[in-house]
Amino acid sequence: MTREQTINLGAGPSTLPTSVLTEAARDILDYQGTGMGVIELSHRSSTFQNLLKQTENDLRKLADIPDEYAVLFVQGGGTDQFSATLLNLLAAYASRNPDAPTPAVDYVVSGAWSNKAIKEAQRLFPRVNVACDVRKNIGDASQPIPRPSQWNLSQDAALLYYCDNETIHGLEFPVDFIQELPEDYRKRVPIVADCSSNILSRPVNIRDHGIVFFGAQKNIGPSGLTIVVVRRDLVVDPDALQAQYLPPIPTMLVYKNMLDNGSLYNTPPMFPIYVSGLVFQKLLAEGGVPSITKVNQDKADAVYGALLASPNVYRLNVAHADFRSKMNITFRVLGEDGEPSEEAEAAFIKLCGEHHIVQIKGHRSVGGVRTSIYNATSLEQAQTLASVINKFAGK
Amino acid sequence: MTREQTINLGAGPSTLPTSVLTEAARDILDYQGTGMGVIELSHRSSTFQNLLKQTENDLRKLADIPDEYAVLFVQGGGTDQFSATLLNLLAAYASRNPDAPTPAVDYVVSGAWSNKAIKEAQRLFPRVNVACDVRKNIGDASQPIPRPSQWNLSQDAALLYYCDNETIHGLEFPVDFIQELPEDYRKRVPIVADCSSNILSRPVNIRDHGIVFFGAQKNIGPSGLTIVVVRRDLVVDPDALQAQYLPPIPTMLVYKNMLDNGSLYNTPPMFPIYVSGLVFQKLLAEGGVPSITKVNQDKADAVYGALLASPNVYRLNVAHADFRSKMNITFRVLGEDGEPSEEAEAAFIKLCGEHHIVQIKGHRSVGGVRTSIYNATSLEQAQTLASVINKFAGK
Repeated sequence: MTREQTINLGAGPSTLPTSVLTEAARDILDYQGTGMGVIELSHRSSTFQNLLKQTENDLRKLADIPDEYAVLFVQGGGTDQFSATLLNLLAAYASRNPDAPTPAVDYVVSGAWSNKAIKEAQRLFPRVNVACDVRKNIGDASQPIPRPSQWNLSQDAALLYYCDNETIHGLEFPVDFIQELPEDYRKRVPIVADCSSNILSRPVNIRDHGIVFFGAQKNIGPSGLTIVVVRRDLVVDPDALQAQYLPPIPTMLVYKNMLDNGSLYNTPPMFPIYVSGLVFQKLLAEGGVPSITKVNQDKADAVYGALLASPNVYRLNVAHADFRSKMNITFRVLGEDGEPSEEAEAAFIKLCGEHHIVQIKGHRSVGGVRTSIYNATSLEQAQTLASVINKFAGK
Repeated sequence: MTREQTINLGAGPSTLPTSVLTEAARDILDYQGTGMGVIELSHRSSTFQNLLKQTENDLRKLADIPDEYAVLFVQGGGTDQFSATLLNLLAAYASRNPDAPTPAVDYVVSGAWSNKAIKEAQRLFPRVNVACDVRKNIGDASQPIPRPSQWNLSQDAALLYYCDNETIHGLEFPVDFIQELPEDYRKRVPIVADCSSNILSRPVNIRDHGIVFFGAQKNIGPSGLTIVVVRRDLVVDPDALQAQYLPPIPTMLVYKNMLDNGSLYNTPPMFPIYVSGLVFQKLLAEGGVPSITKVNQDKADAVYGALLASPNVYRLNVAHADFRSKMNITFRVLGEDGEPSEEAEAAFIKLCGEHHIVQIKGHRSVGGVRTSIYNATSLEQAQTLASVINKFAGK
């Protein structure tokens, strides 16, 4: 199977633009005539620092990140941010409220990833509040997803955490959903969004958040890089605080160390940063987030349209149309009895393979099929998927 | 300047074999005919899992890692291991000694990196003991480096930590130095070695250690990967322990999570793992550590020989011959008054540049010149450096 034929719809690490990889293949042997590959440069060389600065600036343009937010390039994946967002925002709360008792932290649970985040919070901190848990609602059209105005919010919350797009379950919140939170809560409580699997696929209003973070390995670049966008006033020195409830924070998780050192507190993951920079440049040249948002809508329309056209063959995992991910389309394939059938799913995946559509098996925790159509998947490839969906359904 | 001309002696990230990068340049577009680049594969695909397994097995062969040790592929660099080694070994101590009071932790300070490690321990834990601090001895021939039998050791230590090769100061302990520790201490106390800048450059006796860890970005591969070799009985579940002195451990730092999930607790840094695997294969094909040890000795002899031949022009930072790093050769260039001269150093670095020898400015904290001759630097390149050292000295 050649690269040109292959339609890689893996959920992450996922497909990257061929033009980007072609450029990377050249630069790992010799970057800009330095006689050194991009991964052989000192991270403190002006060459790499320029690359890092350019990458940050391009991301700022793409995601409309205001100056009062810092951009940190870190390691450890989303999982490290489950710990870091909690610990750093507890420190920020302690800094703002030096005499206050132990605060609460509010979590919205909407699938596997936000569930992992709340589990980590519960490991490290005693006052964890479930603001909303929609996992039972996902597949049940009769149970609407509660709006933010209905969430169970804490008066003394140090943060509200949610996952904007659940890669495994395929549930994505509508754009600007959290603007429905009460005005006074939004003013008081820093909101954390995990946008790992939908960043740069559509607009996200950074100003509504205290922290927006995302792993690179879906819409942006190779695995091994996580980007944290954090409002500067929330970045404090935890070692200067006295609050008894504040757990000690290992150095690499302290945002202030990263901020004060321009993400070069220690050697950063240079290759993922470099590739992400190429992806940002490509996206900017093609019209940025407004353009790709439109393409992604067309892609999602094509695939969902085909699935919905054969309700006796496919069942979408997310019953609520407004909450269906435009990045990770998850569904079951039904047997003759109208129920999900692993046999039918195997046959569907096999047919896809014959059309060079690969890496679409659903996550082991939910089963079924998951087709991920990130930014690097073209409309044409999504249309090919739609045609195979139709073909399998006998249309 | 072409790649073929360039002699990149950067301290890390550092030069990698051209044959490895050429293979990587091909595989990032299409790995083994899958139609997908190596960084576009699912980390849970059999293709990547095979790659990971092969990489681990090759490292086990190269470094002679016994079965009773686990090999973990993690993120976060050495800095994350400053926290992780402490926290996991405190947990292991609490598991072995459920009723014991707060233990001590012993640290050997021999330069910038071990100093960072002890500073992190002091941030997170109250009973930190300096077993030995040799920083004042480094440049003073009249002050010998204390032998391990003379170190100030704690009876109830949960670990002894040392850095085998200090990249910045250029101090490397002799092979098997820690075998001079008292026998009962070695039996009782897990010893941690940071081998980031000399792993696979010479033998390291894994069996003498509880943990040996190393960042990839010097002798092994690209930045963004750290490898932890840990004795399996030291890997415990910290959440199952009651010890009051045990700080909470963020999930990504818990070795047990990595061990139980074969380093796939979350998405690993795939590209650095892949490139490291290629480097391991190359090293095995060329005779492994015994062969490269000999080459490294010849390289170091060539460079040190040239420096020592002109004592009125060069002053080595490490006054003790047995402790001079074979990886990072650090020295000052002297002015006409026989004292270190930044002007002379600039002239030396300029002459090196004319011979395409680059990235050799000393770390800002010690100044002078640092020439790093890791595994990927050839004997011929080291000889070129030696000849420039001679030329500058007028020989």
